Amino acid sequence: MSRRLRIAQVSPLYERVPPVLYGGTERVVGYLTEELVERGHQVTLFATGDSRTKAKLVPQIPHALRVDGPRQDDLAFHLLELARVFEHPRDFDIIHCHVGHLAFPFARLAGASTLHTLHGRLDLPDTYPIFRHFRDQPLVSISHAQRRPFKRLGVTWASTVYHGIPLDQYPFSPKGGSYLAFLGRISPEKRPDLAIDLAKRVGMPLKIAAKVDPVDQVYFEREIQPLLDHPLIEFIGEISETAKPEFLGRARALVFPIDWPEPFGLVVIESLACGTPVIARSCGSVPELILNGQTGFVADTLDEMAAAVKALDRIDRAECRRDVAARFTVSRMVDHYETVYESLIGGQARSA
Amino acid sequence: MSRRLRIAQVSPLYERVPPVLYGGTERVVGYLTEELVERGHQVTLFATGDSRTKAKLVPQIPHALRVDGPRQDDLAFHLLELARVFEHPRDFDIIHCHVGHLAFPFARLAGASTLHTLHGRLDLPDTYPIFRHFRDQPLVSISHAQRRPFKRLGVTWASTVYHGIPLDQYPFSPKGGSYLAFLGRISPEKRPDLAIDLAKRVGMPLKIAAKVDPVDQVYFEREIQPLLDHPLIEFIGEISETAKPEFLGRARALVFPIDWPEPFGLVVIESLACGTPVIARSCGSVPELILNGQTGFVADTLDEMAAAVKALDRIDRAECRRDVAARFTVSRMVDHYETVYESLIGGQARSA
Repeated sequence: MSRRLRIAQVSPLYERVPPVLYGGTERVVGYLTEELVERGHQVTLFATGDSRTKAKLVPQIPHALRVDGPRQDDLAFHLLELARVFEHPRDFDIIHCHVGHLAFPFARLAGASTLHTLHGRLDLPDTYPIFRHFRDQPLVSISHAQRRPFKRLGVTWASTVYHGIPLDQYPFSPKGGSYLAFLGRISPEKRPDLAIDLAKRVGMPLKIAAKVDPVDQVYFEREIQPLLDHPLIEFIGEISETAKPEFLGRARALVFPIDWPEPFGLVVIESLACGTPVIARSCGSVPELILNGQTGFVADTLDEMAAAVKALDRIDRAECRRDVAARFTVSRMVDHYETVYESLIGGQARSA
Repeated sequence: MSRRLRIAQVSPLYERVPPVLYGGTERVVGYLTEELVERGHQVTLFATGDSRTKAKLVPQIPHALRVDGPRQDDLAFHLLELARVFEHPRDFDIIHCHVGHLAFPFARLAGASTLHTLHGRLDLPDTYPIFRHFRDQPLVSISHAQRRPFKRLGVTWASTVYHGIPLDQYPFSPKGGSYLAFLGRISPEKRPDLAIDLAKRVGMPLKIAAKVDPVDQVYFEREIQPLLDHPLIEFIGEISETAKPEFLGRARALVFPIDWPEPFGLVVIESLACGTPVIARSCGSVPELILNGQTGFVADTLDEMAAAVKALDRIDRAECRRDVAARFTVSRMVDHYETVYESLIGGQARSA
């Protein structure tokens, strides 16, 4: 892409860009922003003040909202962020928002060329009227599955753009290891209990690297902690971004037995990048991310998951890596977004 | 006021207009709207679909958000409401918003002549940056005390407009009765415990007409319920709007021992309208609503409140009524808002 664009990236303020630990949306915003700068675009990042970027940073608050301490007024800070972005819409060729439907009225009232990537689940009927009202706003889904609840809303899908990760940060581990890995949050919809059942069933060690949010503390203590006292099960707690590649690369497989419509699932492609196949239930984006039988197995019941573990020998770890290199790199993601930006700006120019 | 204006009233959606039970903001929006219609203005009310009005109703959702049942996405509905209002700003001479700072970016981006009445407490530092950013937006405070936290923000105060009530709905009760009344919500900042202490201290019956919100259920059970088992104390529960005048009118005094910066306190003027003096702690708007020694007593400690009860003989109940008739009627409130509307429209015209 040769044309240099003036691009605003509007990040949520829950984590800095990139996040210190957990925070998928802010991490993807970071990858996208840095690569756009690398390609010569003039990028302005609206984010927390402690964010790290080569773009021009317009700081909104000193630190991320999702920190310990007194509860803050998330809405007021995001409203002000959007006000600052959209009061000068002509400063940008394209404004790329990652904050959901909150940005819609700003984009329309300012008449700005805007793109909205939707990062969350969309099966929330209370939000359907606002999506329907703003059905002219160009939306990006992060998987095809994510779009399902919006079938009848008539919204404007600009594209589905899969997340990408920087391959060099997830080195290929050709041999893998001997344990099953669980990585993420401890919460009912992630089904850590099912991962534990599977490990016990097939007699393979399970390592659980997961944070426990305050909201999930009771679930953890009541439902999960009693299951941990078993020679095969090891609970590690939350691990840093830098420790993840080794944790994933040394596993035999990642177990991802989710029970909710996960819109993307970064950990799936992180695992595959390290060469570690994924055994996952067929919720949300899973069937799009995993090539069933090639880079892992889509398995819904405990029986199916146990059969999948036995079939892991059939998976070529190099193929897992190759598929990420082909479909889920930062470079491919940014190629795709550049195409979408150009089509929106072109469309705008034609209609103007 | 002879000029006929096209006015939008933008209500919160937590209750219908007017509310069935509790809901101060929506009640005031209702009084204001009906009186403006009465005076010949062309009023459009943005509110819940079950609202009752002589204005043109633009329904947002069928029923109020604050109903039993699954939690709804308050924000999405209010965003959509504001979008509908501000996408056609030229339909109105003035847009009068009652939804707080959420409306600021809409008003500025649409370039609409807008007035914001602030109905809540303002001592919330997380919101200061957004108020500072939108300091050109004309604000109405509902008491002078409400403004205090904003001293250094440089915001634009259009006026302080006290709430008004329809006097005919609160008949004067010349004789009053023999009990102390507590009316409102059971919550720590309303200090029902202090009202109970006072009744026991002075040996006068106390009737508590109050709702218990789910969020306050634990406080009620732990802190208040144990205090109710006493011959002087009677807990009635939530009462309807129609039962309030009799409950207030038959009391010797209303006890209002609040412990938070109440921005207005409708129940104070309702009680005074019925002729019943008020004993209240000097928080928030209290010193503005009560003429100390004439229509009640501002008393902070239990000793001071007990002394106030003994001094109730000095209060002329007719004077309580007269002060409401002079300062807190719907008619006076609407006179005041009409003046503010005209000054904003005039200011707009001059600067245009």
